[in-house]
Amino acid sequence: MITFATGPASYRHWKLAFDGPVATLSMDVDESAGLRPDYKLKLNSYDLGVDIELADAIQRIRFEHPEVHAVVVTSLKERIFCAGANIMMLRGSTHGWKVNFCKFTNETRVAIEDASAHSGIKFLAAVNGTCAGGGYELALACDEILVDDGNSSVALPEAPLLGVLPGTGGLTRVVDKRHVRRDLADFFSTLVEGIKGKRAVEWGFVDRVSPTSQFKEAVQKRAKELAAPSDRPAAGPGITLNPLNPTVTESSLTYSAVTLAVNRTKRTADLTVHAPNGPQPENVEEILKAGDQFWPLRAFRELDDALLRLRINEPEVGTVVVRTEGDIDAVLAVDRTLDALKSHWLVREIVLHMKRTLKRLDLTSRTFFALIEEGSAFGGSLFELALASDRSYMFHDDAEASVIALSPMNFGPLPMSNGLTRLQTRFLNAPDKIVKLQEQLDGPLAASRYNAGDAEDLGLVTFAPDEIDWDDEIRLAVEARAAFSPDAMTGMEANLRFAGPETMETKIFGRLTAWQNWIFQRPNAVGEKGALQAYGQQGRPEFDWKRT
Amino acid sequence: MITFATGPASYRHWKLAFDGPVATLSMDVDESAGLRPDYKLKLNSYDLGVDIELADAIQRIRFEHPEVHAVVVTSLKERIFCAGANIMMLRGSTHGWKVNFCKFTNETRVAIEDASAHSGIKFLAAVNGTCAGGGYELALACDEILVDDGNSSVALPEAPLLGVLPGTGGLTRVVDKRHVRRDLADFFSTLVEGIKGKRAVEWGFVDRVSPTSQFKEAVQKRAKELAAPSDRPAAGPGITLNPLNPTVTESSLTYSAVTLAVNRTKRTADLTVHAPNGPQPENVEEILKAGDQFWPLRAFRELDDALLRLRINEPEVGTVVVRTEGDIDAVLAVDRTLDALKSHWLVREIVLHMKRTLKRLDLTSRTFFALIEEGSAFGGSLFELALASDRSYMFHDDAEASVIALSPMNFGPLPMSNGLTRLQTRFLNAPDKIVKLQEQLDGPLAASRYNAGDAEDLGLVTFAPDEIDWDDEIRLAVEARAAFSPDAMTGMEANLRFAGPETMETKIFGRLTAWQNWIFQRPNAVGEKGALQAYGQQGRPEFDWKRT
Repeated sequence: MITFATGPASYRHWKLAFDGPVATLSMDVDESAGLRPDYKLKLNSYDLGVDIELADAIQRIRFEHPEVHAVVVTSLKERIFCAGANIMMLRGSTHGWKVNFCKFTNETRVAIEDASAHSGIKFLAAVNGTCAGGGYELALACDEILVDDGNSSVALPEAPLLGVLPGTGGLTRVVDKRHVRRDLADFFSTLVEGIKGKRAVEWGFVDRVSPTSQFKEAVQKRAKELAAPSDRPAAGPGITLNPLNPTVTESSLTYSAVTLAVNRTKRTADLTVHAPNGPQPENVEEILKAGDQFWPLRAFRELDDALLRLRINEPEVGTVVVRTEGDIDAVLAVDRTLDALKSHWLVREIVLHMKRTLKRLDLTSRTFFALIEEGSAFGGSLFELALASDRSYMFHDDAEASVIALSPMNFGPLPMSNGLTRLQTRFLNAPDKIVKLQEQLDGPLAASRYNAGDAEDLGLVTFAPDEIDWDDEIRLAVEARAAFSPDAMTGMEANLRFAGPETMETKIFGRLTAWQNWIFQRPNAVGEKGALQAYGQQGRPEFDWKRT
Repeated sequence: MITFATGPASYRHWKLAFDGPVATLSMDVDESAGLRPDYKLKLNSYDLGVDIELADAIQRIRFEHPEVHAVVVTSLKERIFCAGANIMMLRGSTHGWKVNFCKFTNETRVAIEDASAHSGIKFLAAVNGTCAGGGYELALACDEILVDDGNSSVALPEAPLLGVLPGTGGLTRVVDKRHVRRDLADFFSTLVEGIKGKRAVEWGFVDRVSPTSQFKEAVQKRAKELAAPSDRPAAGPGITLNPLNPTVTESSLTYSAVTLAVNRTKRTADLTVHAPNGPQPENVEEILKAGDQFWPLRAFRELDDALLRLRINEPEVGTVVVRTEGDIDAVLAVDRTLDALKSHWLVREIVLHMKRTLKRLDLTSRTFFALIEEGSAFGGSLFELALASDRSYMFHDDAEASVIALSPMNFGPLPMSNGLTRLQTRFLNAPDKIVKLQEQLDGPLAASRYNAGDAEDLGLVTFAPDEIDWDDEIRLAVEARAAFSPDAMTGMEANLRFAGPETMETKIFGRLTAWQNWIFQRPNAVGEKGALQAYGQQGRPEFDWKRT
């Protein structure tokens, strides 16, 4: 079973060093410490284990080191920055593993860009050696790319060498982030050896090259410049992200506020999030003191971890029933606190983490059905779970005891990867409706509540069956869903969840990933004579030449 | 060999009738007239042959019937509107055929929407019977959907029934065009039987239902209302679209202004477009008189036909070398005429057709390399061929004899499916540059010319090799390209060609199509026990339950 828990003390592949406002994250992959024994992580190539550490490091910089305002991403290996995803690992992986691996590495790179855009942490790729494939894609996720001119080229050799696409956003970021001309991008993406020096700068693939003798100095200077405008605190301390340590049984994960129970026979899971209990911090001092035990951080870290484990460890669980439990007012009170204190760096980080977790849910290729019943706590930020679900069912009892609620958290701080809130995506052609819903926020909790009838009329939930229908309707919906082709559901959900505008991010997860998934199925890549299979072996790949 | 030539007199599957401003396009598929003998086109289901007629009918309405301002799309079959793409046809088709079939049907539906948006022709789907899958997708491409309440439901049963996606934009149009809520879309897209009546209207899947007794009248009334605001002429005549009749040899197609020669051993093709010869029409009367022989219409119709034949009949030809020949000034003069007369309905149609043809090229999954040499005619609208190519090579001779030129046609009338011109897509972060280029248009031809050095400096061409390098560089580029994995090239080009914003159209061709192509490869759909294979046979499909 793969877990995602790690920390600097147990990193095998990265070194994290601090020098005032600049942190340095150095890749130094231990080639013998891959997740599987059938490959060696040579030349700073990576597998999921390496990327789990990278993702962890970025999280810790955000939460544990508020004094860090810029991060240098570099390598400790001689003349090698990063060779990208390990080819032998890809070759030996199932289709599902490849897809999940790419999804996670994509999310990690998007998290880098999220920190740059919203957290006041800029990233500088200090490319001090060969930088190929996923290595260059990591650099592309940074704000700027500085290159040691002595021996460094950048390259995306996947298509010419392996017959696959660069799997971590490379093609998209080249044209849509760095705005390299498409014809130059085409040329570049077919060059196994890549390009270097002045031409790489002129064409926009990197920002600057320095002679080897001046490289380190140039990196430090530029990192300090990037750090300067940050609105993060000048000094720490931050808060510590302690291990989550869920209780693990054969079929369940139990955290403090989240439980995930799988039924492998039915191919379903029950995901439950608990509202906060007892008094909650209401000011910055109390939040800092609570640290990672502050409910929204704790609950969403647990949710994030549960989703990641579900994705990778339970591939056959196709349908997730989402519930919430506890005091809805307690959720709304926390939302109010988050909204009131949103300019504080830690609160900002907590909200950004909630946002990223919900995006992780949007991008999880499982069906989510939310069940809203008496005693549930679908308010504000937790109501986003219902909005993120493919459908929501709300129990329409005579007593109107099941209630949902909106809070300011539903109107901006938690956008999807298309740049819209889930309410905006839901009511794409009815912005007026959203304005009206927002106007109804009221009272000491700055919230609005809706019973099942109102929620259904307003379109806030999908269905509101009554007592007579509830059990059968839910049971049949879940059973029917679990019986459909898993591939058709994945494709359908990927197309229905993201109405409205597309962004670089949705392009990466929609267009690019879908094409890559297609190629990852094709004999020309993964067949016995396919390019990915044949790489490094005797003889050339053999292709079916038909273009599709 | 598949050809795309047809006309109302030889339609087997559609009836086209005219009544003043309203045309009626009635589907009446001849089940024994499929393109292959291994299936029957029952229940108004369709194959590529049916859609070729549909595409032809829409073209003819545009050009031959300017008096038509609205089109009713309906069925002549009892209680059946259209059952969608024929399942037996899909089952018996190769992967490449399925992909090409879906691409063509998508382009036809986008052409319907293009006529609505730009030509003053509105489309009304008069759904008078079962409307499922591709049938509902055809209705979705229309401006409005009217339903005979007696016996008509609408459905997208592909995912639950066949384990594939609706392949002609259905999922995208439901949420992005009709703005159906994603949860309702999710529910709907898993219902084999679909929905009907009031609920279909309330949820936004259709616009109106009428009792059977009033249906025909309601359709006529609404069609007339839709026709009323059109700016098309009140009466004809239009111009006739005569057959193209290329000379066909074993390895070439020769039209009047276009030639396509394939080299199957090298897996390359040479595509050449000739500039106009002799005097060209300069006013509306002359254009009407020239009719389909007016060069831009003739040349782009031929180009369109050549691209379609290449796609379907030459799957192994992966690289197309694009050339132009003739008098560049003659092209620029035609562009000037098109620009000056653009408000006339026929000129508008000609320019829209040029636009659609260039989009067809953008969406053709073959590599295009443009070669610009002395005597070439890459000016204005023909320069779009170079901009649409993955790369362009311009011969940098000492005498500066090879020249390209821009015209007003490069600055607006021929946008890509992302809504931007090819220059805007090329210089995504340099709008100033485009303004400057436009300011350089000058002189009696309202054009600007650039030699190889200037064109390279301005980024208008990819490379400008000199005499010493030219032959080798071109040869090596084409040979190298032809040796790469065709799938990797398809995926790479699909991701590099469309920088910038996404539109419903690019979502359909990028995100949705890529997922569908993935599913079309998956054993859960096309394996021996897959849902598409198993449909209609004994026993249920068997799935690999792993979600990816």
